[in-house]
Amino acid sequence: RINGDRLWDSLMEMAQIGPGVAGGNNRQTLTDEDGEGRALFQKWCEAAGCEMGLDSMGNMFAMRPGTDVDALPVYVGSHLDTQPTGGKYDGVLGVLGGLEVVRTLNDLGVKTKHPIVVTNWTNEEGTRYAPAMLASGVFAGVHEEDWAKDRVDAKGKRFGDELKRIGWEGEEPVGSRKMHAFFELHIEQGPILEAEGKDIGIVTHGQGLSWMQLTIRGKDAHTGSTPMPMRKNAGLGMAKVLQLVDEIAWSHAPHAVGAAGHIDVHPNSRNVIPGEVVFTVDFRSPDLAVIQDMEARLKEGAQAICDEMGLTVEFEKVGGFDPVEFDATCVGALRDAAERLGYSHRDIISGAGHDACWINRVAPTAMVMCPCVDGLSHNEAEEISKDWAAAGADVLLHAVVETAGI
Amino acid sequence: RINGDRLWDSLMEMAQIGPGVAGGNNRQTLTDEDGEGRALFQKWCEAAGCEMGLDSMGNMFAMRPGTDVDALPVYVGSHLDTQPTGGKYDGVLGVLGGLEVVRTLNDLGVKTKHPIVVTNWTNEEGTRYAPAMLASGVFAGVHEEDWAKDRVDAKGKRFGDELKRIGWEGEEPVGSRKMHAFFELHIEQGPILEAEGKDIGIVTHGQGLSWMQLTIRGKDAHTGSTPMPMRKNAGLGMAKVLQLVDEIAWSHAPHAVGAAGHIDVHPNSRNVIPGEVVFTVDFRSPDLAVIQDMEARLKEGAQAICDEMGLTVEFEKVGGFDPVEFDATCVGALRDAAERLGYSHRDIISGAGHDACWINRVAPTAMVMCPCVDGLSHNEAEEISKDWAAAGADVLLHAVVETAGI
Ligand SMILES: NC(=O)NCCC(=O)O
Ligand SMILES: NC(=O)NCCC(=O)O
Repeated sequence: RINGDRLWDSLMEMAQIGPGVAGGNNRQTLTDEDGEGRALFQKWCEAAGCEMGLDSMGNMFAMRPGTDVDALPVYVGSHLDTQPTGGKYDGVLGVLGGLEVVRTLNDLGVKTKHPIVVTNWTNEEGTRYAPAMLASGVFAGVHEEDWAKDRVDAKGKRFGDELKRIGWEGEEPVGSRKMHAFFELHIEQGPILEAEGKDIGIVTHGQGLSWMQLTIRGKDAHTGSTPMPMRKNAGLGMAKVLQLVDEIAWSHAPHAVGAAGHIDVHPNSRNVIPGEVVFTVDFRSPDLAVIQDMEARLKEGAQAICDEMGLTVEFEKVGGFDPVEFDATCVGALRDAAERLGYSHRDIISGAGHDACWINRVAPTAMVMCPCVDGLSHNEAEEISKDWAAAGADVLLHAVVETAGI
Repeated sequence: RINGDRLWDSLMEMAQIGPGVAGGNNRQTLTDEDGEGRALFQKWCEAAGCEMGLDSMGNMFAMRPGTDVDALPVYVGSHLDTQPTGGKYDGVLGVLGGLEVVRTLNDLGVKTKHPIVVTNWTNEEGTRYAPAMLASGVFAGVHEEDWAKDRVDAKGKRFGDELKRIGWEGEEPVGSRKMHAFFELHIEQGPILEAEGKDIGIVTHGQGLSWMQLTIRGKDAHTGSTPMPMRKNAGLGMAKVLQLVDEIAWSHAPHAVGAAGHIDVHPNSRNVIPGEVVFTVDFRSPDLAVIQDMEARLKEGAQAICDEMGLTVEFEKVGGFDPVEFDATCVGALRDAAERLGYSHRDIISGAGHDACWINRVAPTAMVMCPCVDGLSHNEAEEISKDWAAAGADVLLHAVVETAGI
């Protein structure tokens, strides 16, 4: 069993860096706070006897050597970056849970055949730089590194420049590592485990996602002196599309969800009819055909709405991944571990995207989840219990040791 | 007749300050650019032999002395601040048109009985600091000066501090001046004059306005892993309210308009269901009962929408004025001037709010308008012709001289 108190203390210490305004965190990717969080993680890894590797996307790899020099490492990890108003556990639990596995093996003096590598993937959240899971995507060969480094944030700052600026661009070529397996521990971010009173979720599949950015253009004009029939109100067009998004998602519920979290209105002045609105529709489903249907209906419906209102609309896919089926052997190792440890568990589909979804393309991969209070995540009030965290890390420990061999 | 070329050159020179991105202007109130614009105006006024007065709200008063020492001045003017993506004429024409009246009288060596004062009112646009027409409102006793100075912009900067910072806080108590009359020249900002081929609009009335800021709160949560029935999507609530706003305005068309120009979504992250949306509904009508009806239906309807969706909603009135009827004598002076000069004209109701709407409460007031291309305003592409500007300033000149006496 891992040391639940130590894991919790580390979670709380990391949460000191980039505090939010309501008890959570704002430690967005490639900010100074992200740099500080990385430095703390590195310090802890080195204290645990690991050697830190760093690739040119800023992905961090803390290696605990194995006894077999030829054996590929077993990787564990997640991400340390947070949402602008994020919780203390989303991502962080998976990284520090991996570190806790190493610390526990050190305590017990257990050597594994395969090395164990604890990983922090850069820019999982995707708020500052779309798409989400950017650096694990480059690692898995889904994105070109140059393209990824050219992503810009809302202030026009390039990913590549910001990575250099905070001093965490490594020399190692991205994706050059081969993995024996990859395990990711994460909070559920949904309500199922807590509602059913289960300690552990064994993630068999991950939902697919489509992020479609729409730019609706009308004509900015005076809100007072422009007669109703002469208006080309891009804000009103956006409002109608948002309702369509909701209708489309409900039409596939419970096998789909949809909403827009990001909306920018121009020029955003009380007495100017919006001339341009840029917003991103987030559609998800475990079923690829459903995602495709939702995308098609969004495009057709938004086009019709805009045509009728004299507006134009452009669509840009700014993120997306297909539904994922995790590796049966890795899934089995996690299920066996939960069973052996006596934790109540159930199979589950991940509602969120995770680095594991990309790594699954280049290595045998699976995920384990613990409950979170009210299913709430991407909110500073995100909460889990110390016991839930410890149970998740215990299952991770056992599956990793099983897979890495003794 | 005024000198149309000189007026146009001054308009173009002022437009050099705080240029926009598409040929218009971004010279928002109390920015460095606003300060520069004021300095240029002051330089021109002093060159025209005027003495500049400055009150503690930053309102500027350039006085051309009259021959009767006891006579109250005739005021002319408007505002030099612009929208963030504004045009070159909205407000500016009224200030520089007033200056052109003084310059023309100087050219002709004409002395008036009453002094003439050219005025630049601070923060007419209301984008950076709501409400619009803030400083003329304080002058007219509608707002308390302390309250006005406590207004904050989107970055939390106080009006009072910013006025000090740019160096344009005067010593003169606001509203201490008494006026014989006030005239404002402005572009129409609507399509009527151009469509009817009229040179001049004689403004008999001004629409009333209601700015209601709504704060809708739900719960920010993960866009992927939060099931549809568990969502409290403040963005979707806003979308439904925006459609209601449109329906309410149309139900009174053509005697009302309505839209929301300002919308802020929190935390504005692609994968976070919006937990809070703040937006401002702008309703207008020449009929006070219609404005009251629209406000009441908005409150009732938005409350019902939010109740049904498990959201909360708060309403804050951030701006408003009742419909205005301008002074019959001043209106008559403008109509007579247009007639005498041979310009085609019609009576018109102003769709936008203007400083004249407030000053009308403390002095005999009227407005004259010139057409603008396609009725477009609050847009960088706002355009007028040199002849239109000159005709408006000519009418202003004649009405002012008539009222100020020779
Ligand atoms: N786990 C998580 O919140 N990842 C961010 C990407 C997503 O939106 O699913
Ligand atoms: N004239 C003008 O655009 N004034 C701003 C106040 C308003 O929105 O009507």
